[in-house]
Amino acid sequence: MVKDCSTDTVAQAVREYEGVTRKKEIGDMIRSLRIESPDVVASFGEDAAVIRHNAEDALLLAADGIWSKLMEADPFWAGYCAVLVNVHDIAAMGGRPVAMVDILSVTNDRLRDEVTRGMVAASAQFGVPIVGGHLHPNTPYSVVDVAILGTATMDQIIFSDTAEEGDVVVAAIDLDGRVHPSCCFNWDSVTMKPAETVRAQIRVMEDLGKEHLVTAGKDISNPGVIGTLGMLLEVSGKGAVIDLEAIPRPDLSAIDLPFEQWVRMYPGMGFILTVKPENVEEVRRRFADVGITAAAIGEVNGSRRLSVRYLGRETQVFDLDQEGIMRFFTEGGACR
Amino acid sequence: MVKDCSTDTVAQAVREYEGVTRKKEIGDMIRSLRIESPDVVASFGEDAAVIRHNAEDALLLAADGIWSKLMEADPFWAGYCAVLVNVHDIAAMGGRPVAMVDILSVTNDRLRDEVTRGMVAASAQFGVPIVGGHLHPNTPYSVVDVAILGTATMDQIIFSDTAEEGDVVVAAIDLDGRVHPSCCFNWDSVTMKPAETVRAQIRVMEDLGKEHLVTAGKDISNPGVIGTLGMLLEVSGKGAVIDLEAIPRPDLSAIDLPFEQWVRMYPGMGFILTVKPENVEEVRRRFADVGITAAAIGEVNGSRRLSVRYLGRETQVFDLDQEGIMRFFTEGGACR
Repeated sequence: MVKDCSTDTVAQAVREYEGVTRKKEIGDMIRSLRIESPDVVASFGEDAAVIRHNAEDALLLAADGIWSKLMEADPFWAGYCAVLVNVHDIAAMGGRPVAMVDILSVTNDRLRDEVTRGMVAASAQFGVPIVGGHLHPNTPYSVVDVAILGTATMDQIIFSDTAEEGDVVVAAIDLDGRVHPSCCFNWDSVTMKPAETVRAQIRVMEDLGKEHLVTAGKDISNPGVIGTLGMLLEVSGKGAVIDLEAIPRPDLSAIDLPFEQWVRMYPGMGFILTVKPENVEEVRRRFADVGITAAAIGEVNGSRRLSVRYLGRETQVFDLDQEGIMRFFTEGGACR
Repeated sequence: MVKDCSTDTVAQAVREYEGVTRKKEIGDMIRSLRIESPDVVASFGEDAAVIRHNAEDALLLAADGIWSKLMEADPFWAGYCAVLVNVHDIAAMGGRPVAMVDILSVTNDRLRDEVTRGMVAASAQFGVPIVGGHLHPNTPYSVVDVAILGTATMDQIIFSDTAEEGDVVVAAIDLDGRVHPSCCFNWDSVTMKPAETVRAQIRVMEDLGKEHLVTAGKDISNPGVIGTLGMLLEVSGKGAVIDLEAIPRPDLSAIDLPFEQWVRMYPGMGFILTVKPENVEEVRRRFADVGITAAAIGEVNGSRRLSVRYLGRETQVFDLDQEGIMRFFTEGGACR
């Protein structure tokens, strides 16, 4: 893999990554937001909330944002990502993204124009219109937030708390990309692709949901591939051991990228899934058809611990009984 | 009315009110956000976007926020208002509010807890759950934004660009309230009311939509009753003359409130509607049944000018051919 890589260094890098630790700050606030509502099938803890609509339909609703640092470094990419992470939130649920609203706080007009250009580029490419919004002009700092509406039938939804012992953990990532020049923790596999390619990639998740080919899933967001799996296992009440060697990756030595960095990156198109053993080949094939590399990287067990394995050595990354990663809040897409 | 009130002072006060002038800053950005989408029936310029879903259903999506000044003055009220303005956005369209997501940027934990308490209070009172969200912790300033999902059938939707010449302008406001102690431009008629009262008030708009009793409508937001009417006339391509004396108002002298201030206030529950003359009495009755005072305050004409009339004198407030108020963007709920 990389000469100095070990299970210990990877485990530590993931545990201490800001993309993971930021998730811990939320807890109590979220619990206090819940009110009872019979039609709300899922809310906090899922990539998107699921609301029953009529008999068999579901409406999906999510919000996600990109804040100051990336806004200032590259407002176009920040706007693009604000749309991208929201489209991922719906795709991760097996749903179809329908429309978005944006909320902008900007320090100046140039930033506003650039972030808007980025949002429009992604909106047009993914075919998901921005239909309204709210602007806070001339604020002392800059944030772009987007909320997204999606649709699905109730029985096609992919939840993240439904992984089962014995399931295979599958990581699916589009490796055909680049480290984004404005953010070394963003793997951009999307801006250079035609619309039909990225739309087909998003649609795979919808098909996997409809055909019940996966048992649980999440989009790989800020905490990276291992951190995202930790979140999925946490809400599922399960554990897993994964093989570092099996995680899909580009030729890291060619681009001089440490493995510890790769596993913490936010990929332009990436999902963590749990799959019954008999469906793994079919799931891999579906992703391969749209240019995404999917691989079996481990197995779900009942331990409530996530461990990584490499060269015969195994190290625990998270003890999910002792330390929750996210305490039921979805966040994603920011840049260290 | 009030001794020094004249059509000139009211027209000027409305024209120069920050709640109105802020609407002008948006223009080009919004035009650049639009992309073509056949299912998007309405987007910018309406209180909520309308997306066709299946044959006869519509999904409504809106976003609205409250920024720094009110957040710092009274974070509970800011959180409460963030929910309130979003519920109004759906009600104004004749829809039913279904669920919300919130996006918080906060400078400290106390603010976060207070604004959350305000959101939860309004969410529980109006029966509209908050199902997800995004937090930007420890930001250098504070903003609370909410996005809301609503539902309707396509034929019950109340648009704002459908006012017709000869329609009666109806202002509907719950007068049973108080100037909010934290914001002299907020008329709070809601925090002290039981849940069933405010929910019934919201439902009236849904009934008016279903029974086609109004031709157009908007919730009275930041620009106040006259400014909101101006926005409705602008998108409808119409004009109107209204009588200041006819605008529903509490006993202003008893609470020492200038009329010029009253007409610029954001009411806890208020709508501007256009109504066929034969339906005005029925519309008034529906509002009266839920404690809202509705009155005919003028008539829609084809002039594209909004004028106010009092004691035989008439003054133009907006020439909508010359100066657009909002250039197709919805904003609301902030506090000067």
